[in-house]
Amino acid sequence: MPPQSTGLQLRSTVKAEGVLELSLARVPIPDPQPDEVLIRVDASPVNPSDLGLMFGGADLSTAKVSGTPDDPVVTANVPPVVMKTMAGRVGQSLPVGNEGAGVVIRTGSSDQARTLMGKTVAILGGAMYAQFRCINASQCLVLPPGTTPAEGASCFVNPLTALGMVETMRLEGHSALVHTAAASNLGQMLNKLCLADRIGLVNIVRKPQHMDLLKAIGAQHVVSSSAQTFLDDLKEALVATGATLAFDAIGGGKLASQILSSMEAAAARSGGEYSRYGSTTHKQVYIYGGLDRGPTELNRNFGMAWGIGGWLLTAFLKKIGPQAAQKLRERVAAEVKTTFASHYTKEVSLAEALRLEEIAIYGQISTGQKYLINPNKGLAT
Amino acid sequence: MPPQSTGLQLRSTVKAEGVLELSLARVPIPDPQPDEVLIRVDASPVNPSDLGLMFGGADLSTAKVSGTPDDPVVTANVPPVVMKTMAGRVGQSLPVGNEGAGVVIRTGSSDQARTLMGKTVAILGGAMYAQFRCINASQCLVLPPGTTPAEGASCFVNPLTALGMVETMRLEGHSALVHTAAASNLGQMLNKLCLADRIGLVNIVRKPQHMDLLKAIGAQHVVSSSAQTFLDDLKEALVATGATLAFDAIGGGKLASQILSSMEAAAARSGGEYSRYGSTTHKQVYIYGGLDRGPTELNRNFGMAWGIGGWLLTAFLKKIGPQAAQKLRERVAAEVKTTFASHYTKEVSLAEALRLEEIAIYGQISTGQKYLINPNKGLAT
Repeated sequence: MPPQSTGLQLRSTVKAEGVLELSLARVPIPDPQPDEVLIRVDASPVNPSDLGLMFGGADLSTAKVSGTPDDPVVTANVPPVVMKTMAGRVGQSLPVGNEGAGVVIRTGSSDQARTLMGKTVAILGGAMYAQFRCINASQCLVLPPGTTPAEGASCFVNPLTALGMVETMRLEGHSALVHTAAASNLGQMLNKLCLADRIGLVNIVRKPQHMDLLKAIGAQHVVSSSAQTFLDDLKEALVATGATLAFDAIGGGKLASQILSSMEAAAARSGGEYSRYGSTTHKQVYIYGGLDRGPTELNRNFGMAWGIGGWLLTAFLKKIGPQAAQKLRERVAAEVKTTFASHYTKEVSLAEALRLEEIAIYGQISTGQKYLINPNKGLAT
Repeated sequence: MPPQSTGLQLRSTVKAEGVLELSLARVPIPDPQPDEVLIRVDASPVNPSDLGLMFGGADLSTAKVSGTPDDPVVTANVPPVVMKTMAGRVGQSLPVGNEGAGVVIRTGSSDQARTLMGKTVAILGGAMYAQFRCINASQCLVLPPGTTPAEGASCFVNPLTALGMVETMRLEGHSALVHTAAASNLGQMLNKLCLADRIGLVNIVRKPQHMDLLKAIGAQHVVSSSAQTFLDDLKEALVATGATLAFDAIGGGKLASQILSSMEAAAARSGGEYSRYGSTTHKQVYIYGGLDRGPTELNRNFGMAWGIGGWLLTAFLKKIGPQAAQKLRERVAAEVKTTFASHYTKEVSLAEALRLEEIAIYGQISTGQKYLINPNKGLAT
């Protein structure tokens, strides 16, 4: 039972006047319902997928901090063009933080809840940048004995995304994958997974130095989109792997179109009768991120058997159903220290996460920097 | 049994030096194999989908004719940029004409073939711009008694495309449709089909005068993409119909993106909790034509539940399997004089089809002109 009745929770508000406000709200600690458990959150990562909700598209170069070091308030301007897309959240004080891990310190009366008492669990529940999180027991992933919250903090977003990509490949009848922005934490994890499962993976990176990073962890096919030989390199890797499915984190520009064209060129290598509708090999790109928010330009020189679409982890998990999703989660727990291990460059408290010098680092998505928030760091529990 | 041993067949060749050549080849009339029938082709339409194979991307303003009126040869230049996409067909003399109808004049020895003797049948077999076509009996669609070849000539491409759009809608869980370039022959047929089956249909036309054309045949939702109020009009029609699936004949430009954005805006009308990933309503655009060969530009302001892809009739029919495809064909035959009736502005012989003044008309895809080729017109049979 927590020795206190309230806890801190990081909140993000986009105000109608075009200002983002980040602050630490002091909120009551709820009593768990019969099926619920109360978790002391000890570790929650800052994922790229958290930044959109947290910063609301604000121009971080305008960020200012007020308040006290323990109770800071960060404000920043949201550009008018971005405000148009924020209509759905204006004025709402939203909690942040998709996933994390901690210890169950109180439970509801149900058997399922009570068995979790004292266990270290990981959850994907939102509102994780908070000292305490009350959640249904069924949403808890029990970590293997000896796993720390920091080790289990990133059990969902990246591991399930990597597994979801591989499962999507199998469900849709492809046999190998392409991944862009491949040097990211997720990209590195996907390499480990594909190596473990013997799946062909074509890694597309934007900077030549990232090629070495991936090759060092065993990646076999790494091509750089900044190389003059990019399209030839890509085609060779596609021929070698037979990949006809790509997951693209970039979204904007011509990359998705280039991938489809290269897949079509690789398919055409196999020959066959001329058809002005192109090959019958279905080529698919899923856009799951938006590192480039600009328009996607498709040059449609890849026949008629193609598709592009959005891919969202939560939608994928809903589609495969709770049992299949649970199997994926159990694999993550079993391999959390190996295939799905995450590494962080810094651990910060909630208040430290609102320092401008920290925001300047974790607020931009850059390969090689990954923050872990420990919401109870420095606070009496 | 035909009184002659050879017949004329229209051929298209793209030569390595960048020249398209159209001519009438005199080819032997084959003896039907046991399962085959020989058809005297009396009617074959010029569909937009025939033009690509026939003209090979040639610049028709450079077209010249040589030879004799009965044995003409048309040549035209293929621009170098187009030649790059023609590698698969260079030097091959290709027959043309996707579909048509005629009378079975000779059969193989099998029971299935022999029952077709003397029947008027429609086929989708390619090589239909020819006096005679030998084909497997199973590919023949027997037309109801009293149907002329001209009435049955367009039983496949447009009717099955319209039915395929509606079936795709049902298979993928949508309840209404959007169609672009909606004043086309296909678009008019789709309106008749959707009215008959009580399916909501949003028609997008490019010219205001086409709104009246569609409204005259009973279309309820017609919006013009050239109107200043286009996006508002489209959204209202999407709200009214609930359409979340579009078939786009244009392909290039921003239209597909605008359709997805408008679908998302219509979905957002229903309210619900804010999600920065947009609505969970899946929005889909299939590009089935390429009236605008330019790039497709997607602005990705429509959440994550979206898809765009190519849609090709032959791939769709293969996907649903032969039994389901046969049901669609039987419906076409039953309604060939009503829902699936086609109208032609001119009937020409094979030789007339190679006159420059006719090519100038049917060679460009324009709403309101549709040619029917009668390969035996003026020839002794």
